[in-house]
Amino acid sequence: MSTRIIIDTDPGVDDALTFLLALASPEIQLEALTTVQGNVTLEKATRNALSVLELANASHIPVAQGCSHPLVKSPHNSGEVIHGWSGMGQSNLPEPKSKIVDSHAIDYLIERFLAEPNEISLFTIGPLTNVALAIRKEPRIVSAIRELVIMGGAIRSGGNITPLAEFNIHEDPHAAYVVFHSGIPITLIPLDATYKCLLTSADVARLNKINSPIARFVRDATADYMAFYKQYEGFDGCALHDPLTLAAIIAPELLTLAEHYVSVDISGGVSTGKTFADFMKVWKKPPNMRVALDVKGREFVELFVERIMSLRGA
Amino acid sequence: MSTRIIIDTDPGVDDALTFLLALASPEIQLEALTTVQGNVTLEKATRNALSVLELANASHIPVAQGCSHPLVKSPHNSGEVIHGWSGMGQSNLPEPKSKIVDSHAIDYLIERFLAEPNEISLFTIGPLTNVALAIRKEPRIVSAIRELVIMGGAIRSGGNITPLAEFNIHEDPHAAYVVFHSGIPITLIPLDATYKCLLTSADVARLNKINSPIARFVRDATADYMAFYKQYEGFDGCALHDPLTLAAIIAPELLTLAEHYVSVDISGGVSTGKTFADFMKVWKKPPNMRVALDVKGREFVELFVERIMSLRGA
Amino acid sequence: MSTRIIIDTDPGVDDALTFLLALASPEIQLEALTTVQGNVTLEKATRNALSVLELANASHIPVAQGCSHPLVKSPHNSGEVIHGWSGMGQSNLPEPKSKIVDSHAIDYLIERFLAEPNEISLFTIGPLTNVALAIRKEPRIVSAIRELVIMGGAIRSGGNITPLAEFNIHEDPHAAYVVFHSGIPITLIPLDATYKCLLTSADVARLNKINSPIARFVRDATADYMAFYKQYEGFDGCALHDPLTLAAIIAPELLTLAEHYVSVDISGGVSTGKTFADFMKVWKKPPNMRVALDVKGREFVELFVERIMSLRGA
Amino acid sequence: MSTRIIIDTDPGVDDALTFLLALASPEIQLEALTTVQGNVTLEKATRNALSVLELANASHIPVAQGCSHPLVKSPHNSGEVIHGWSGMGQSNLPEPKSKIVDSHAIDYLIERFLAEPNEISLFTIGPLTNVALAIRKEPRIVSAIRELVIMGGAIRSGGNITPLAEFNIHEDPHAAYVVFHSGIPITLIPLDATYKCLLTSADVARLNKINSPIARFVRDATADYMAFYKQYEGFDGCALHDPLTLAAIIAPELLTLAEHYVSVDISGGVSTGKTFADFMKVWKKPPNMRVALDVKGREFVELFVERIMSLRGA
Repeated sequence: MSTRIIIDTDPGVDDALTFLLALASPEIQLEALTTVQGNVTLEKATRNALSVLELANASHIPVAQGCSHPLVKSPHNSGEVIHGWSGMGQSNLPEPKSKIVDSHAIDYLIERFLAEPNEISLFTIGPLTNVALAIRKEPRIVSAIRELVIMGGAIRSGGNITPLAEFNIHEDPHAAYVVFHSGIPITLIPLDATYKCLLTSADVARLNKINSPIARFVRDATADYMAFYKQYEGFDGCALHDPLTLAAIIAPELLTLAEHYVSVDISGGVSTGKTFADFMKVWKKPPNMRVALDVKGREFVELFVERIMSLRGA
Repeated sequence: MSTRIIIDTDPGVDDALTFLLALASPEIQLEALTTVQGNVTLEKATRNALSVLELANASHIPVAQGCSHPLVKSPHNSGEVIHGWSGMGQSNLPEPKSKIVDSHAIDYLIERFLAEPNEISLFTIGPLTNVALAIRKEPRIVSAIRELVIMGGAIRSGGNITPLAEFNIHEDPHAAYVVFHSGIPITLIPLDATYKCLLTSADVARLNKINSPIARFVRDATADYMAFYKQYEGFDGCALHDPLTLAAIIAPELLTLAEHYVSVDISGGVSTGKTFADFMKVWKKPPNMRVALDVKGREFVELFVERIMSLRGA
Repeated sequence: MSTRIIIDTDPGVDDALTFLLALASPEIQLEALTTVQGNVTLEKATRNALSVLELANASHIPVAQGCSHPLVKSPHNSGEVIHGWSGMGQSNLPEPKSKIVDSHAIDYLIERFLAEPNEISLFTIGPLTNVALAIRKEPRIVSAIRELVIMGGAIRSGGNITPLAEFNIHEDPHAAYVVFHSGIPITLIPLDATYKCLLTSADVARLNKINSPIARFVRDATADYMAFYKQYEGFDGCALHDPLTLAAIIAPELLTLAEHYVSVDISGGVSTGKTFADFMKVWKKPPNMRVALDVKGREFVELFVERIMSLRGA
Repeated sequence: MSTRIIIDTDPGVDDALTFLLALASPEIQLEALTTVQGNVTLEKATRNALSVLELANASHIPVAQGCSHPLVKSPHNSGEVIHGWSGMGQSNLPEPKSKIVDSHAIDYLIERFLAEPNEISLFTIGPLTNVALAIRKEPRIVSAIRELVIMGGAIRSGGNITPLAEFNIHEDPHAAYVVFHSGIPITLIPLDATYKCLLTSADVARLNKINSPIARFVRDATADYMAFYKQYEGFDGCALHDPLTLAAIIAPELLTLAEHYVSVDISGGVSTGKTFADFMKVWKKPPNMRVALDVKGREFVELFVERIMSLRGA
């Protein structure tokens, strides 16, 4: 039986790759997307979500639009540096024909989870704004989400937006704070794991041996992303940050998971957005999440490529 | 023509006095109440709002229930120390017969203000949680609120919950931050003005020369409140913090208003919740609100007593 | 009997005026100056201290040089905007012939106060770096200082370097924190009082009716200072911030003093350097200083002008 | 030729082991100790320093006493939980007969380093208070210290006093901030390396096969320390945090060193005292220290045991 999931997303190149991997995975039933600002503005995020679904012949999947602004701080949208102006790199996806649903993402999440408590899992691959606002508006959502898998944070790893903080968490640290301490069962996929999943140019070339619009999209969407990594971080390849969340369903054996008490710094100081685990149990608090501190990265990338090759696009 | 207002409230003794003053003022048309946790829990706040409206023969006024939790931090509800366990002091209001409306306060505010842009003013006399969430969910509300009058903050004055911070702002500083910088036209009524409006035991006795259930309610509701002030702050009387917001409509000439750039500290440090004005224009930013730095306090209290005496209860 | 004092100083125009007022006041015996960076760099501060003493025929007064850097943060030296490049406005004081003493200011303070416990008072009119370091190096100095009078802070008043903070405290908030909580008996002279003591151009003209090098120095030193105030704060005159500290000896009846628990924000957030009093005794802590919240400003300025007129220079 | 070193220390069990290892190492010439509060109060730290030197027949080595209080915050002295009331576990060292030198540690450090610039290295195995104050009093010390090796911080590792911070840095984060950014050439030995150097009960037993007062001291001093680790962190052995600093001289090949830009959080928030490296060079700042991110722990412990066995005590 497949796992039913909703993805909350700010697409973004690796967000798009996540939708594709979900659609290519028989273990997963993708129920809906909800959009949020982050890598790009809300308008672009929503447009990209609809366009990628059309590309993948999946326009039937509902998309609800969420928040255009983090909970407290001002939006940064710095993701445009690596995701390109549109958020989809050099790919030129057509204007989508499909439309978003009427409900605001906050209400859509509340309605879906309360309608079928503990039946659906939530995957967040952008800032946690929508989830935090849904919790504050309707606290009962906490006990209705089956599982929450979050791409975010840097535990032992250095940060990628400040020396201490990862982008998704740093973009809305207050939302992360609300979600981390909400009581929802959480699995965190931080940079510690995701930076070990590098899609290389050789992988993209292999993928493009088949003549498929989706393979071409992956090539065009990741081209700038890879160039960025090459220039600034000195390696060939782009990290599959967001797709790795789905490993929690399709290949959990690749992840090294440990239970920890994890929180996030919202002090406004230099460590704002730092996601930290209390490894030595100094605070003597019970664990509030499972954290992926390691992953068999190459094996996940191979799995990713295989799955994407199986997809037929529009 | 009377001014149409919605009051966002966490009743609370002086919240109740505010409803009564609004109902007693021909210059004001009270359109609705929205409730929020603060002085007391959300459930008590909503119950109190309904009960006080019934007491005042005003059950036709809709009440929408809002947030049970501040935007980011944990609720404090320390107001129970001065407002009593129920939030209404020693008064024993019966269980209300009327019901809240179906919409969440966030949605109710969005609907009402977007339906009649710039026709209705918003008065907040509790933490700003509902307003901040409404702004984040539907940013267009910002340009639809005619005016926002906020009881909150301590500018030159010391704080009443920390040395620097006033209760309403301290209870949800992140929400205050969002609202202050939203662009809504704001009038701030801080402790600098409200502590000059002291309802004394002599005032309450005068009010009770008439035999009225409302006068008795005022006496019973304020009894503990006054005892608290006497014990901890050494004066006879209780400050009409929340009712003073209505002076912006019914007696603006009593207020000394000045335009300033005002912000709130959300650093998490000792000054968290401090509401400050840039008096010397060090930051060279344009004013974002009018602030009441002084008031003819005795004149306002006299007006309050007269108006309340005119009310006929249930 | 005159009060023996040491002045810790970062001259600075109004620092120089303070030395002159001390020398002109029979109630005061000026024992020494210790210098610190602040308005200007340490080198300029020391040079200015020596030069002004020479101008006033007071080269016998020892000067000890102190710290070139605040306790933790980086030096700002923004005072040069109003005190001029040299720190002495347009005045052109000659290179001093006298020399500083051998001891570092920290050691000089420790030696002097421990040698004659409770005999000498300390006046600080710059950042509190030297005093804080002396306390940390030799904690016994705390009980040997008769009284510490500090020019610093903004209690009800807005700040002059940030919306919340006054320059001397903001320049080294950590040092202020150490000193405020050291146990030394403190009198604080904040902006609340000092901005009411405005030396006007008429005052300077009156002073210069006598032909005196000191009167000319006051005129030249304050010219830019006054121009700055006129341009940015819109009034004619310059505030006698530092000289007002001496009112604690020569005219205490002009000051409105109240005992309060006062601390300073060192959080690193927006309120860093904010000096606050717990007016409502929320923290229930005993007072740690006397604070001048008001002053008969014009009377102090008159006294200042008279005293300075009595001085004969070099 | 041996390396001349001064150790700044707050003994503390592993501080004492460090002195012994230094005395047992022909590559090292121990020139002096300077004491600081930290694991224990200043008085106990100084007494322990003198006593351990006597035990090791090294009373000729001068000891200068330093600061009893961190730069800004209040002392914590929580080290007594693991180092015992005296700071030396169950060992019962006699009252020392030798005396401290006349100079305060701050002045002693300044004099020694300025007298022989770049000839002597400084090893700090307690809070950095003395070094920070020496830098602020006499900035020229910065270019006179040959090398500074610091036991402190937790980079990828969790903290041992908060989830994020290591004890020495957390005890005086402001001092660490001053020292890290001073320009002194630094080698940092954080928990990432030190927790891999576990002296086990088997090691202690092996050491005690020889009949030596020093071996007995090591046994008695570490007994409680080991019991603490067993109870709270679940392993047999105590970490040789402080002795590992000496590996920088006697066995640098065991350390994995990398150059990084490293700073410390002094915000006052939850991450205060967190020592972080900018691994991804987000801030584009040049490295300010070498950091030991790994060590061949067992090999170091073997070396430690051998060296200690070679010592003859008093």
